Order: sequence, then structure tokens, then C-alpha cells
Amino acid sequence: MIKVLVIGAGAIGAFYGSLLTKAGAEVSVVCRSDYDQVKQHGFIIDSHPIGRWHFSPAQVLKNAADFRGEADYILLCTKVVPGLDRVALIRPAVADNTSIVFIQNGVEIEQEMQDAFPNNEVISGLAFICCNRVSPGEIVHLAYGRLALGNLPNGISHKTAQLCELFNQSGIDCKAIEDIVTGRWQKCVWNAPFNPLSVLSGGLPTLDILQTQESLVRNIMQEVCDIAAASGHRLPDNIIDINIEHTYAMPPYKTSMLLDYEHNQPMETEAILGNALRAAQRLGVAVPHLETVYALMKLRELKLRG
Amino acid sequence: MIKVLVIGAGAIGAFYGSLLTKAGAEVSVVCRSDYDQVKQHGFIIDSHPIGRWHFSPAQVLKNAADFRGEADYILLCTKVVPGLDRVALIRPAVADNTSIVFIQNGVEIEQEMQDAFPNNEVISGLAFICCNRVSPGEIVHLAYGRLALGNLPNGISHKTAQLCELFNQSGIDCKAIEDIVTGRWQKCVWNAPFNPLSVLSGGLPTLDILQTQESLVRNIMQEVCDIAAASGHRLPDNIIDINIEHTYAMPPYKTSMLLDYEHNQPMETEAILGNALRAAQRLGVAVPHLETVYALMKLRELKLRG
Repeated sequence: MIKVLVIGAGAIGAFYGSLLTKAGAEVSVVCRSDYDQVKQHGFIIDSHPIGRWHFSPAQVLKNAADFRGEADYILLCTKVVPGLDRVALIRPAVADNTSIVFIQNGVEIEQEMQDAFPNNEVISGLAFICCNRVSPGEIVHLAYGRLALGNLPNGISHKTAQLCELFNQSGIDCKAIEDIVTGRWQKCVWNAPFNPLSVLSGGLPTLDILQTQESLVRNIMQEVCDIAAASGHRLPDNIIDINIEHTYAMPPYKTSMLLDYEHNQPMETEAILGNALRAAQRLGVAVPHLETVYALMKLRELKLRG
Repeated sequence: MIKVLVIGAGAIGAFYGSLLTKAGAEVSVVCRSDYDQVKQHGFIIDSHPIGRWHFSPAQVLKNAADFRGEADYILLCTKVVPGLDRVALIRPAVADNTSIVFIQNGVEIEQEMQDAFPNNEVISGLAFICCNRVSPGEIVHLAYGRLALGNLPNGISHKTAQLCELFNQSGIDCKAIEDIVTGRWQKCVWNAPFNPLSVLSGGLPTLDILQTQESLVRNIMQEVCDIAAASGHRLPDNIIDINIEHTYAMPPYKTSMLLDYEHNQPMETEAILGNALRAAQRLGVAVPHLETVYALMKLRELKLRG
């Protein structure tokens, strides 16, 4: 039986972990804040598209060091924020044959993991999903759910294909893609404008932002495309138009950064904007709009801490 | 006796109006929100640098149409915000020999007044002052106070020199300058970064902004210099360095836009940023940082209205 350890069992981790259980894997979780509730009662997953189910993990742990057995896959599903050491978080549970999968936002977040675990397979994952933790152990899945997985620096290994297959068996759309790094930049095209603009506007949903400042949104998107191309990951020519059209068609949507902001949680400013900006500086790409938005987010964060 | 009508007798209007009374002019005021208080008790001006005095205007009016007599000068001291029709506000009191003086923030705010009153002298004024209305009829002058006055499109008329002289007699530093439009761009160099950044950061004082995001501040300042130069008003080469040094030396300071924001008052986004941006577009100057900050202010305002 395939053994999976989910580390960071918030909304994303619990949702995808529960799907792997459905597909027959043995899934354990490390979850710190909701430990007591989950240990006693497991998770309730309330998926508007798929239905409602109970998820009872094989082991519920406070720390990865407490994990008994060898994980075929570690699924790292925390946010990527300064102060949270992703390597230290998973290290105690990484065995020789463990594939390290991270389902996380941001660009250029891979190297750290590859450097820390040079002898393990690293699988980079992207989730296109809207789901929230509404109370301890209770996850609501509102919409979407698609996953993309791929190896680093590129390619699709046997274990990546196997994991994909498990997800697909569970009823979610999962694609193994040859160039997951390009996929990260592609996702960043949407995240880089809408996440910070929703926060800096003081809480506007995506549709209001787009309807009144489409040109700023497009300028930021173009800058992300420029960085991606300079780093060897040219994005499709029509990607901006597609993102714009798609966002007009979405119901008004609160971004993940806005939700974090409203709940006084750390935001993924560095993973999404800071890393993109540092790549631009390294590659000599001019990104004045992105630069301004990043600087303003840093000011906003400074004020929040103050 | 020189007759002056101050229109928009908030902090700035009451302060400068009271100084002209000290210098021997007959000063009346149009003040709407604090009318009852001012009609009965006049103003109390509490100036930390100069002292405390009472200012009892010759006429206290609700509307310019109620003014009896002919004003040698109309001093327009309102904010420049959409929805406030500056021309309509003063028109009923403009006589043949009235010089129209506006002591207001922003760039490219002159043409509207020149077009509306082609046969009157128009004097453009800039105040470098920190003063606030703390309660109805009570003005606190905290620091600075310098005035610059000049004619449009440039030059110094007899009446401008006379008004300057009056202000100087009253104990405030007032300079008549040959090119007041350049002076406006020069003031915008400071206003364009610090005003919106203080609001978009959620309320940081100038020093925090400068200490953490000096490069964004400099980029916006440079763009203002570029627009000014393209519009024929080249600013001194060292103006950015001087502004940066000066701001480091200032005590932590809340900008006027931040005060408006905190008091839920309309902000001078259009007068300061919108007009600068429209000038850039007209003149073909690239100003991506300014553009981003302006767009974010518009989103912030949209959220505030919503």
C-alpha cells in the first residue's frame, strides 16, 4: 500500500490527502494547530463540487519526527512564508525512497528543496483550487481542484505518474506536465497582479480590480511573462488574454493573499512577488510595475507588524 | 484698505487669512462647515512657531454670493478634489479688478481657472505648511509656513508683489517667484511618492517609508522630474537628493493625504497623481511607478466608496 505523509494539513493538505485515501493510499498527516480536533475526529471535507466525506488519517501527528514507517510520498502543503523552514519541517520524515512533493504557490521555490535533499526525488506541484478551512478539522471546497505535477528541472518520473494516477482515480483532474517550472510562471501570471492588488486596494474582489484597472493588471502580467521568458520558460503568446477573459468569467473572488490579510496571517508576498522580482533583477528584466506593487506590499506588512 | 475674501476657510485659509488681517487687510471668509462657530466666535489660531491669536473676519459668509463689496484678492484655499467646482465656488464674488489667488496642491490645476476668468489676474500659490483644523474654528499650526506666489504662465505682477509684501509683514516667509508652474512640479516631487505611499501602506509615517523603500520613492520622484522637464519645467539636478535628505531630517510626518484618508475625507489623488499622469501620457513620458501607485489609489478609493 502506498504510504503518504501530508505535512501542513490545512485546507489544501487535508483536501488532497483525503483524496489519496479515497484512491487507496495510507495517508497520515502532520497538523499542528488543529491537532486535538483532528486526532479525535479526523477531518470533514465539504466539497461543493464532489460531495461531503469524512477523512480519518492513518496517523495524526504533531511533528514529522513522530511518523512511524517510511513514506513513499511526503506532500508538503504549507504556505511559503519567511520564518517557516520547509526543509526542517519535513527532514525527520524523509527516508531514502521518499519522493518529496510540494503543492505550493510561488516561483523559484524549488532550489531550496533540491539542495536539501539531493538524493531524493523532488516533485513540484501546483493546485488550482478554491478551498478554505472554516473551523478546526473542517474544510470547505468551493470550486476548481485541478492539480499539476512535474519533476525538477523537468520531466515526469514513474512515481510522479503514479501519484497523478492516484489523484485521477480519486475523481480530481491531475496532470503530469513535462515542464512544471513553466507551469509555476504561468500560475504566477494570475497571482502576481490579483493577490497584491486585492490586499492593497483594501479588499476588492478580482472583478472590481479588473473592471477598473485592467491595464495595470495586464502590465504586471506582461512583466511576469518577460521574466519567465528570460529565465528560459517562454509562456504562450495568448496567456494574458486568456487570464483576463477567464477572470471576467469567474464569480467575484477573494484571493488567497486577501484571505490571509483579513485573517491576520502571513502572506506569500516573497514566494510570489519577491522571488519573481529577484529573478528579474538577476536576469536584467525591467519590471517597474511589479517592483512598485512589491514595495507597497512590504510597506503594508511593515505597518501590520508595527 | 485692501479687501481679501478667503474661500474655503479650513486650516490653510484661516491661517493665511488671519495673517493678512495682522498685516492690515480687511479679510472676510466663506466657510461652510464651521459657519455657526466662526460667525459667533471667529477663529482661534494656535501657532506653535508664532504664538496664539484670535482672528475675527470682517464678514463671515456661507456663500461667495453673500459677499458685500469688491475683493482685491480672492484667496481660494479648498482642496482640489473631483466634485468640488472651484470655478462655481468663487464666481459670484469675482469682480473686474479681483485677483484670483489659489493656494492649493497639485499640478496642472491652473488652466481651468484661467479659462473661466480670462479677464482677471490669476495668481498661483503654494503653501509649505503643516497645520490642521482641530475643532470648529480652531486651527493648530504645527510647523513651517512658507508661501510661494507667482503669475501665470509666469512672471510677478504688481498685485502679486503687493500680496507677498503683506504676508511678509505679517511674519511669514512669502516669496514671489518667476515660474510658479515649475514650483508646482517641484512640490509634486515630494507629494507624488509620500502622499499615496502613506495611504497605501495603511498609515506609515514618511520616515518608515523612506527607510524601507527609498528606491521606490526615488523612482517616483524621478518620473515627476521627467514629466516636468518634458512639459518645459526642468527641475534642478539635485532636487531628488535634497528631498530625500530633507525627509530623513524631518520628524516622522503624516501626509495630508493620509490625514484625509484617516478622517474619511476626499483625497487629492487626481490633483497630485492623476494630473501628473495625464501630463505624462500627453507628453509621451514613461512613468510606470507613478502609474501603478495612481491605479492602486483609484482601487483604494473604489473600495472606500463601496
